[in-house]
Amino acid sequence: MAKIEKYAVGVDLGGTNIKIGIVSAKGKLVKSTSIKTEADSGPKNVISNIIDGIDSILSKNKFKIQGIGVGCPGVVSIKKGIVENAPNLPGWKNVKLGPIIKEKFGYKVHLENDANAAAIGELIFGAGKKFDSFIMVTLGTGVGGGIVFNKKIFRGEFGAAGELGHISIDVNGPKCNCGSTGCIEAYAGNSYLKEQIRSELKNYPDSKVWELIGNDLSKVSPRVIQVASEKKDEYARFVIERMGRQLGAALASLSNLLDISTFIVGGGVAGFGKPLFDSVRLTVTQRVLAPLRPRVLVIPAKLQNEAGIKGASSLVFYNN
Amino acid sequence: MAKIEKYAVGVDLGGTNIKIGIVSAKGKLVKSTSIKTEADSGPKNVISNIIDGIDSILSKNKFKIQGIGVGCPGVVSIKKGIVENAPNLPGWKNVKLGPIIKEKFGYKVHLENDANAAAIGELIFGAGKKFDSFIMVTLGTGVGGGIVFNKKIFRGEFGAAGELGHISIDVNGPKCNCGSTGCIEAYAGNSYLKEQIRSELKNYPDSKVWELIGNDLSKVSPRVIQVASEKKDEYARFVIERMGRQLGAALASLSNLLDISTFIVGGGVAGFGKPLFDSVRLTVTQRVLAPLRPRVLVIPAKLQNEAGIKGASSLVFYNN
Repeated sequence: MAKIEKYAVGVDLGGTNIKIGIVSAKGKLVKSTSIKTEADSGPKNVISNIIDGIDSILSKNKFKIQGIGVGCPGVVSIKKGIVENAPNLPGWKNVKLGPIIKEKFGYKVHLENDANAAAIGELIFGAGKKFDSFIMVTLGTGVGGGIVFNKKIFRGEFGAAGELGHISIDVNGPKCNCGSTGCIEAYAGNSYLKEQIRSELKNYPDSKVWELIGNDLSKVSPRVIQVASEKKDEYARFVIERMGRQLGAALASLSNLLDISTFIVGGGVAGFGKPLFDSVRLTVTQRVLAPLRPRVLVIPAKLQNEAGIKGASSLVFYNN
Repeated sequence: MAKIEKYAVGVDLGGTNIKIGIVSAKGKLVKSTSIKTEADSGPKNVISNIIDGIDSILSKNKFKIQGIGVGCPGVVSIKKGIVENAPNLPGWKNVKLGPIIKEKFGYKVHLENDANAAAIGELIFGAGKKFDSFIMVTLGTGVGGGIVFNKKIFRGEFGAAGELGHISIDVNGPKCNCGSTGCIEAYAGNSYLKEQIRSELKNYPDSKVWELIGNDLSKVSPRVIQVASEKKDEYARFVIERMGRQLGAALASLSNLLDISTFIVGGGVAGFGKPLFDSVRLTVTQRVLAPLRPRVLVIPAKLQNEAGIKGASSLVFYNN
């Protein structure tokens, strides 16, 4: 008799969209949907949207569902299934999201911070499968991360570990929204990066970026830099390689501290591809302590656009 | 019947001296000796010195010895009791120190890297007793550390975790011996600190430091800065507070990453005392992410001059 494959529902709760899908234990996304979060309407309405979304994804369900995984921004209590605080979701303070979903659908619910969910997703389904320990780096609006040590998320004292966007690489560096200076997020986070490009692009009048943005600085984006870099634009390459050096410096400190030398890099900005990865890899290798150098490995995440849903689903298959 | 107290032998193997003592399970040093390491004479002779030292400390022994703990510089295999590599001990490559001592004396031998031993010492006998998790920072010739998480040393993938002296706080900072730039050790390590003071003291002709060193720059030392600071010398205070800001910046990054907010600071330079601790505390609090701020605690180590022997002894009472 063929073994019946197991499935999980994954809910990726974002500030703009809620993405929901059904994912197999082997990591195949078999069904998915995306709905508006309507975050400004407050927790009650957002929860109602989540429930409608799960309802619709489970309609005519023919899969053997093992549970529901939910990835949330902010601080969560994984034990209680509570969203303690989510800065991007107005009004979310100690919301019992896990128990509410469990009561509605009857399945076991696994709630997790979205950065950790992304790391667990790579661990269970993605580039982290063959490693016991790695650092997940997510380059997006912010710079997030997750520490996987011996196949488990390292959570720290109160579950907030992994904020590697707020490793400072320059005490005298640019101001970060967090209140500190020189945080890696203050260089590589989307809004900081765009701002930096806008302020220096005038010094590169020949850059192909100008054409790509139609001379409209408001159209600057990581995507534009990526396209220009693929066209071998010198300035775009400079931006990407500089980011690689900045990120690499942070990761080297982290590697010295934790003796973990595998880095899995995902998120939209990871689309910069080879020029970014080469630069990160070179910098980490140059900067880490000698015994760690031969072990440094910087590789792209695998789940990419499906990282949210698959990360959330993976929580069901993760042995916490 | 009174409970018989248990004791351990602690061996603190340093590049210059081997300090050996007997310490009770309550952390009282009841007997101690110090002998020359004679590191240049090679492992065989050093081991012979260690054995002679243990022999002498155990002569006429009236204590109930539970085992022998050894703190070593460099990379050790705690499982095998092997010193894999000790840069400050010429010729030490894969030296089976643990088994050799065990065979000679019959007691169980616990070998550990000295920075981790210092952390375990504070955990078992010192300022770390009441904490589940903390970061030990040792300010000496180098800047070392140990990560204690849930009462255990966090070792990383290959046992080398805790190198917090090589967290960089400035990608463009001064060159560190490790090959990187801006490492906290390149500011706060003894030799770097002395060099920095020598190069800038001429700009402070009125500093009391000049008198303390008899105008001889070769006599600059952390101790001199400490004495001048106690006399309220402005330059000395500036040096100490700057070091506090530098160290604080590194610790803030570390706290964001690990969600551990208790720091125990020891080593000779921690003798700078209140001005240093105030500066570190303020900087960490200013720089960590908001949710961590109320939890930041920066306290002095307790074991001080006896940290080496007591750290080594504590290994015997530590539940690895």
